[in-house]
Amino acid sequence: MNANSLVITLPDWLNERLTAPVHLQSDEARMRFVIDLARENVIRGTGGPFAAAVFREDDGALMAAGVNSVLRLNNAMLHAEVVALMFAQARVGSYTLRAVGASYDLVTACEPCAMCLGATLWSGVRRLVCGATRDDAERVGFDEGPVFPESYAYLEQRGITIVRQVLRTEAAGVFDLYVRSGGVVYNG
Amino acid sequence: MNANSLVITLPDWLNERLTAPVHLQSDEARMRFVIDLARENVIRGTGGPFAAAVFREDDGALMAAGVNSVLRLNNAMLHAEVVALMFAQARVGSYTLRAVGASYDLVTACEPCAMCLGATLWSGVRRLVCGATRDDAERVGFDEGPVFPESYAYLEQRGITIVRQVLRTEAAGVFDLYVRSGGVVYNG
Repeated sequence: MNANSLVITLPDWLNERLTAPVHLQSDEARMRFVIDLARENVIRGTGGPFAAAVFREDDGALMAAGVNSVLRLNNAMLHAEVVALMFAQARVGSYTLRAVGASYDLVTACEPCAMCLGATLWSGVRRLVCGATRDDAERVGFDEGPVFPESYAYLEQRGITIVRQVLRTEAAGVFDLYVRSGGVVYNG
Repeated sequence: MNANSLVITLPDWLNERLTAPVHLQSDEARMRFVIDLARENVIRGTGGPFAAAVFREDDGALMAAGVNSVLRLNNAMLHAEVVALMFAQARVGSYTLRAVGASYDLVTACEPCAMCLGATLWSGVRRLVCGATRDDAERVGFDEGPVFPESYAYLEQRGITIVRQVLRTEAAGVFDLYVRSGGVVYNG
């Protein structure tokens, strides 16, 4: 009845980008890397204008990256954050990034939707760094779902540091690029 | 850097259960089916005490089922609802269950966590049917994340009918079974 398995892949261009190790120390440098992936996802036509990546806090090593893959893989759950977190957990071999002897950050080109904010909590990352805002995403027609100020407070109470509006203008600019290039605003 | 792909599987016992077609008309019958999968997931030791399934509304056809696979697949995102919704979308070949000429329901043994409530919204299901409550899950130590009354209202405003506490006692009983059998309460 179900197919026996589901395979989640990254676009070929992203796999190629990830063959060499990446180390980035500052939030800005990491965000620039992530925004660049979001832009590439639009230009290559492989998905929505969103990207995310997981970095190891101490040495800035890139652990995993993801781009929005909803349309490419016909799967509404494959937002950039979910993809990045799944690949990061596969890489460390644990269902929580808190139990593996290092601290990890999730850097995302846009404030997470309700689903991805929940995924952030379950993932075990210690910091969440966001670029564009919910308003930026909604301005071009994306829905962010039931996220409230209390939602952020909930994560902070559980020890997650949240940093917002890092390179916001650059990140939001990719949304405009997506709309200009005729990208589909699914779930609008 | 990333592995090139991630494979999401169901437990063998569940694949076997899904070889024959299932049609169930009432919410209670569907919930009984789902609770049975949650119980089997505990007994077989393949994951947490949670299960979910997607049914076609008109004829009650089971489209896909999922069980909590966080521990089995080392992936914090693989809650039962996410697994069921991903397999359902793969089966219909669309990133939204609204665009495929029929209406679909998500039936879950427990009120969805913040992540899964978001996934429910993006999935395109028309109805969400829940068994055990958030309180039931938290009583045995699970965290449900930032879900508020406004979160449910948000989904309802977007046309999703929500039915709660269907066979609640039976569903919550599986949580107790999990704890008695020494199951790990991850993300507690």
